[in-house]
Amino acid sequence: MSRDAYTDFAHTGPGTLAGRYLRRFWQPVAIAADLPPGHARPIRVMSEDFTLYRGEDGQPHVVAPRCAHRGTQLSTGWVEGDCLRCFYHGWKYDASGQCVEMPAEDASFPPKVRIASYPTEEYLGLVFAYLGEGAAPPLPRYPDFEADGVRENSTYLRSCSYFQNIENALDPVHTAFVHRESGTNFEGLVGVPRMDGEESPWGIEMRGTRPNGKVRVNQFGMPNVLHLALRFGGVWGDTLAWRVPIDDEQHRSFSVHFAPLTGQAADDYRARRAATPRSDDAAIAAIGEAILRGERRVQDLAPDDPDLINVQDYVAQVGQGRLVDRAQDRLGRSDVLVIILRRIWARELQALAEGRPLTAWTRPPGLIATSGA
Amino acid sequence: MSRDAYTDFAHTGPGTLAGRYLRRFWQPVAIAADLPPGHARPIRVMSEDFTLYRGEDGQPHVVAPRCAHRGTQLSTGWVEGDCLRCFYHGWKYDASGQCVEMPAEDASFPPKVRIASYPTEEYLGLVFAYLGEGAAPPLPRYPDFEADGVRENSTYLRSCSYFQNIENALDPVHTAFVHRESGTNFEGLVGVPRMDGEESPWGIEMRGTRPNGKVRVNQFGMPNVLHLALRFGGVWGDTLAWRVPIDDEQHRSFSVHFAPLTGQAADDYRARRAATPRSDDAAIAAIGEAILRGERRVQDLAPDDPDLINVQDYVAQVGQGRLVDRAQDRLGRSDVLVIILRRIWARELQALAEGRPLTAWTRPPGLIATSGA
Amino acid sequence: MSRDAYTDFAHTGPGTLAGRYLRRFWQPVAIAADLPPGHARPIRVMSEDFTLYRGEDGQPHVVAPRCAHRGTQLSTGWVEGDCLRCFYHGWKYDASGQCVEMPAEDASFPPKVRIASYPTEEYLGLVFAYLGEGAAPPLPRYPDFEADGVRENSTYLRSCSYFQNIENALDPVHTAFVHRESGTNFEGLVGVPRMDGEESPWGIEMRGTRPNGKVRVNQFGMPNVLHLALRFGGVWGDTLAWRVPIDDEQHRSFSVHFAPLTGQAADDYRARRAATPRSDDAAIAAIGEAILRGERRVQDLAPDDPDLINVQDYVAQVGQGRLVDRAQDRLGRSDVLVIILRRIWARELQALAEGRPLTAWTRPPGLIATSGA
Repeated sequence: MSRDAYTDFAHTGPGTLAGRYLRRFWQPVAIAADLPPGHARPIRVMSEDFTLYRGEDGQPHVVAPRCAHRGTQLSTGWVEGDCLRCFYHGWKYDASGQCVEMPAEDASFPPKVRIASYPTEEYLGLVFAYLGEGAAPPLPRYPDFEADGVRENSTYLRSCSYFQNIENALDPVHTAFVHRESGTNFEGLVGVPRMDGEESPWGIEMRGTRPNGKVRVNQFGMPNVLHLALRFGGVWGDTLAWRVPIDDEQHRSFSVHFAPLTGQAADDYRARRAATPRSDDAAIAAIGEAILRGERRVQDLAPDDPDLINVQDYVAQVGQGRLVDRAQDRLGRSDVLVIILRRIWARELQALAEGRPLTAWTRPPGLIATSGA
Repeated sequence: MSRDAYTDFAHTGPGTLAGRYLRRFWQPVAIAADLPPGHARPIRVMSEDFTLYRGEDGQPHVVAPRCAHRGTQLSTGWVEGDCLRCFYHGWKYDASGQCVEMPAEDASFPPKVRIASYPTEEYLGLVFAYLGEGAAPPLPRYPDFEADGVRENSTYLRSCSYFQNIENALDPVHTAFVHRESGTNFEGLVGVPRMDGEESPWGIEMRGTRPNGKVRVNQFGMPNVLHLALRFGGVWGDTLAWRVPIDDEQHRSFSVHFAPLTGQAADDYRARRAATPRSDDAAIAAIGEAILRGERRVQDLAPDDPDLINVQDYVAQVGQGRLVDRAQDRLGRSDVLVIILRRIWARELQALAEGRPLTAWTRPPGLIATSGA
Repeated sequence: MSRDAYTDFAHTGPGTLAGRYLRRFWQPVAIAADLPPGHARPIRVMSEDFTLYRGEDGQPHVVAPRCAHRGTQLSTGWVEGDCLRCFYHGWKYDASGQCVEMPAEDASFPPKVRIASYPTEEYLGLVFAYLGEGAAPPLPRYPDFEADGVRENSTYLRSCSYFQNIENALDPVHTAFVHRESGTNFEGLVGVPRMDGEESPWGIEMRGTRPNGKVRVNQFGMPNVLHLALRFGGVWGDTLAWRVPIDDEQHRSFSVHFAPLTGQAADDYRARRAATPRSDDAAIAAIGEAILRGERRVQDLAPDDPDLINVQDYVAQVGQGRLVDRAQDRLGRSDVLVIILRRIWARELQALAEGRPLTAWTRPPGLIATSGA
């Protein structure tokens, strides 16, 4: 396998090296609150289709996308208990993927039919699935996000490779330009930071020192998690965000934000957050694409547009192209963390390809993110 | 030619085996009432484009899609008498495809130019065309649909292979699930039927025996016609329905429904039918696709939604994928008629490939459809 | 290289023979008035992307589409003086493409980075760019369009090869059919003309003699310019129109129309023109595509529909297909100018392929266009 194969982080479909690597980690696939008991939904992750459903008992499950019989999409069927019944001829599968009923067939047939199923767990308001081969490792826990406080989840779709979003997060210099016209949300983060950082037990610790001497620390967890301090509703809190490929040209971000507030302060915060307008994927993408076609200008959006930061990031990331040939890049000193990221990923992909041991990433308590504000 | 080629029923473009077979039969290409005298329309059948027009004398014609001169789409031109004049430079073709006028050329040129034309006949409210090579066989007649009574035509577009719709019709078990929440239209058809049937002179006779012992008989005519009893406006009647490929990933159904009513009963029936809301292809597809994307649920449609049955069938059929690799199927006893269908089709395609005689399908009067209600 | 390569005029991307030929000529890329100072826009010409911007000093510039750093689309950035700053990390380029600032890098890096830039000039209300290799020839001038009078610019998008539009212009026979239901704009141009013409120093002179004996003269300038008499606001004037490929399946026309009016007559004319409704590309294409799908009929548009002529041309040209295999054409005597056009183009492409001298097209004052009305 050529060196090039180890640096292709963007193709993650079944059988790709980056896809095999990502599949060795639990990935969030939905916001838990978006999936009521008794509901099923199609999901697409790393160019593969699946059925996500929540049993009437509340447990989420991920199984194959189609019925084994004649291939109808299982998300259109009925959830019965913790089972899923196909819309076409009523074949019924339990959460392990075992067929347990075929209304128009002899009882001897169902035991012979099984569809794929995947370990699924709900945690921190997200539904996680393990889509790789073999036994799943334990789902990683984040004790600091389990503490007393306010947790919020969010998700968005972005029409480019997940890796462009990861690189964006490892590159806080962009804030000084991409977000320079959205001042309030980055209050105190003034000027172009000098970037620094190194490999950590979890992935990469990055530090940005601003002209005023203040230091902001973000953490990156291999292979695709961010931990950073963000200010929502006027309060600094901690965000974990996963960038998960839908396919090679679009991805979804899933995040949990933790604000360390309790009692009345938490109630007030929740009220402020509830009053904040939210926008949807389609609106963001429509504005972003109009800007990339030259029909609108990002500079013309109102400074208090609630979509502003999301649109700005859309423009910077999707504006590179949906799937970029990184060989064209001209990296500089300020890309130090992007360079480290690519080196770690290439090292891990090469080890995977050659059957050598992979780094066992862990997240020790000392890896904290700070606002630098 | 491998065995596989004989079981590829879904690819029907020019030169494909299934396409060559289907082209040996007259196919409906339009609802007659949708094509006023003097109008022309582009049509696409089995991945080929054609021009359909109706002469000022009322006769429908099917000719090539483009002018021989510089290729402009002929449907945009003018019908003059039973001729069609090109929109670009006025070249005029008669119904046989012969060019008969070129306004800016010498009179010696038109006789040298001819475009393709196809035998076309209007029957039972449908426009049929013979798109195959060689002399056309006589257009098959359906005397029982010509009797005194009320005839209605309908058509719909579905975004999947025509063969998935044919298999759906040979599989009445699906009614117990796909349509289980649309009770009134299938009144009396309660429970999962036990399916039975065999090859007939016309194609396949299928019988479904319900738990209450009642038997419903449907007829399938090779290669792509259905005859079944349906209840419209509260009255059981007979429907003939053709599933005709537009291309390999979408098809159009054309049907004629015959209600055996005359006099006042016919007038009352027509009034009831006229008061029934109809929906269009775009609306059905929009709902169906939203369901397949997981944005809506078929279970949430109102039981009296006039689109319900059509949407349910859309979801079951398009939900298999637009063009399915049937090698993945796990067929059971209840798929007996689907198995017979595939065996007959493969046998005929193999005979066609090897130049052996094909079955001469006929429709004797005894092949009746019954409601089983 | 085969003969066929010399007759492929429709593929104009980088490296194609027709594309190399077209790139030896200045091409209009925008209406000057559509680009305010300080604004940037993405443009696509002959299957290549570029950034068009106008400096704060008013000068237009064309540079590469993406930042050299990490590939973000430069049109989304900020114009500062006559420079362009990238939206992502603030790299700043001057109009020659030289990087002059990298806010987060050492001062030694910018001098090492340069992006492509292209000679750009504003003339007759259009922005022209030279996108070819080597030194640009002088921008051709049209003194008769610089005289005292009223100049108007317009542009439209058409979803087919630019060459189909050029051939359409060399073929005034089409007016008698395509535009036969839009009488007023072609008043006096009655009946099918007899076409005549020959190669000229500029390209092709074409003459259409109508049944009434009147002669209309149009001029074609190689490789893709038209000069013809048109009547706007009730006054005959002269139009120059360039058909410029966006990619192989769509093109944009840019034109300047000159009405020889001054003083009060000019003011009155401007007032009449300002009162004329204009339509946009999207509206024209929506109607045109609905007609090509058979959902509407061009014959049903109102005779005074302001979109009528544009829609009619859309239908005739896009109705040939977006990119036509011209080997299917059956050309006649009335296609004499199309035949001359193709012969000239093939001759030039062959010379280019073989490294022989190309014809040096010039436009002497005697090449005038007449209305023939």
